[in-house]
Amino acid sequence: MAVITNRLTRTLNIRHPIISAPMAFAAGGALAAAVSAAGGLGLIGGGYGDSTWLDEQFDVAAGQRVGVGFITWSLRKSPSLLTDVLRRKPVAVMLSFGDPRPFVAEIRNAGALVICQCQTIDHVWDAIDVGADIIVAQNAEAGGHGALRGALSFVPEAADLLAAHAPDALLVAAGGIADGRGLAAALMLGAEGVLVGTRLWASAEALVHRRHHEAIVEASGDETIRTTIVDIARQIPWPRGFTARVRRNAFTARWHGREDLLEQSAAVEGPRYRQAFAEGDPDNAAVWFGEAAGLIGAIEPASDIIEKMATEAAGRLAAHAGATLA
Amino acid sequence: MAVITNRLTRTLNIRHPIISAPMAFAAGGALAAAVSAAGGLGLIGGGYGDSTWLDEQFDVAAGQRVGVGFITWSLRKSPSLLTDVLRRKPVAVMLSFGDPRPFVAEIRNAGALVICQCQTIDHVWDAIDVGADIIVAQNAEAGGHGALRGALSFVPEAADLLAAHAPDALLVAAGGIADGRGLAAALMLGAEGVLVGTRLWASAEALVHRRHHEAIVEASGDETIRTTIVDIARQIPWPRGFTARVRRNAFTARWHGREDLLEQSAAVEGPRYRQAFAEGDPDNAAVWFGEAAGLIGAIEPASDIIEKMATEAAGRLAAHAGATLA
Repeated sequence: MAVITNRLTRTLNIRHPIISAPMAFAAGGALAAAVSAAGGLGLIGGGYGDSTWLDEQFDVAAGQRVGVGFITWSLRKSPSLLTDVLRRKPVAVMLSFGDPRPFVAEIRNAGALVICQCQTIDHVWDAIDVGADIIVAQNAEAGGHGALRGALSFVPEAADLLAAHAPDALLVAAGGIADGRGLAAALMLGAEGVLVGTRLWASAEALVHRRHHEAIVEASGDETIRTTIVDIARQIPWPRGFTARVRRNAFTARWHGREDLLEQSAAVEGPRYRQAFAEGDPDNAAVWFGEAAGLIGAIEPASDIIEKMATEAAGRLAAHAGATLA
Repeated sequence: MAVITNRLTRTLNIRHPIISAPMAFAAGGALAAAVSAAGGLGLIGGGYGDSTWLDEQFDVAAGQRVGVGFITWSLRKSPSLLTDVLRRKPVAVMLSFGDPRPFVAEIRNAGALVICQCQTIDHVWDAIDVGADIIVAQNAEAGGHGALRGALSFVPEAADLLAAHAPDALLVAAGGIADGRGLAAALMLGAEGVLVGTRLWASAEALVHRRHHEAIVEASGDETIRTTIVDIARQIPWPRGFTARVRRNAFTARWHGREDLLEQSAAVEGPRYRQAFAEGDPDNAAVWFGEAAGLIGAIEPASDIIEKMATEAAGRLAAHAGATLA
């Protein structure tokens, strides 16, 4: 059977050029371990920083080589989280959404690879500047937090920058990749692998409420929206320029476009939101998936998802080389 | 030399699976003819409907097989434009931004192919419903008018719909495609070709002011924005759901986010905008390019652009099949 091997698979010592996104709350040790066991690299979601939870998740993943990801601006408020986590010997630490500079030396000194997730060309310059080992170009169609660049132009533009200024850095594409077609396309664009969120959020191992899983199976890719209302309701101070892509539902219909009013009502709406989320209510809290929802028809084990994605991508590359070139 | 051949190249009787976008004002007969002469299919931009201009452009393109594209909601106000244009025997007529139903029978009866450009899955269903020959999935990174879907999930989701419900229809990807990497990626995602706007806007044959061409050569892909302010200033009543991606400049900095005020000031700002555009002022009028700007380093003849795109895509597909599969 055909297998895709390249600099990324060799650097990470993995079978398939697939990394799981460190999705806050959803990407625990079980998902990360399952992805690594299937031949990819699993990342535990450091989220907003709960050291007890992180410890538990590393325990769950024990026996597998996994990494971890942080929300950079949030990590800055409790940097000891990084120090603690590095004791668990993660393969790699991913930094997203903020200046990576304060953390890179510590990660490197602990022997972990530095992954910087970027949403703009300016971010790519920052990642080059700190000497990131792996640079993730995250596209707007991604679920959860992100920004506005589109894959077909952003990934090759980032690839051109790396070729000129950081040829040893490895480029990975993220956002909207749910099957082998997305992986094969990412390789054509100049990436050497993919970071997968939504498709693995919709896996058996993700820490996601059953009713939220039911919602993604039903949704088309049109049924999501990028918005700031989730963070306003939760009173989480995300920096300007980042929004969260979530399912369109009663909550987004009520508040998107009425951000000022929500801000004023946060004392009431915040607890209401958190209760709805805790109960798995798919209508009155954010359901965290991206446009790849339209490609997902079932909740499956992570191992099946990884294996199918890798096999389909290899097959597609091989078939097109023969069938479409005359 | 490797060449990509598939159902699209056979149906359109072209050498390369590349169609030029019928960009209003910019895509005249010279560009369309150059694209067709280079082995693609050139489309003249019907824009908001100026029958004298359209006649002139078909004269300019005489001797080449070309097509034409219309803004569907605008065409509805002057449907005789379509009747006139069909006398010039276009290979294909593309309908974008609105319900295609009123026009499909007339296009078909004249012997032209029907191309429907789609921005959402709902639009794809409409295109399937009217029996479109070619369906274009336009991604958010495209320059000019469009909507919000991302390529890596939208193109395969549309491909799945066509496979299930309209297997004879041909899928083409648009938005953000400026070189062979984008074409190769589109094929991996399930499209059989690409529609190219921004990269051909930046061609010698496009009807674009020299100072606007200078602006795209300098821009990174981060330097564009989707907005409604251009249409508010010009008092063109675009339907909800569509925005225009243009270069970020003094005009967008002044008005984006202040749409209500601009609307109130349109009697003054409209003429000011139109004068700035006519003068080629790149700061006080819209400069119509998409995120692919970051991949464009020079204004080149359309024939060079088409030839390079096709050659690079074929080479990339062939190389990856060998180099990355073990």
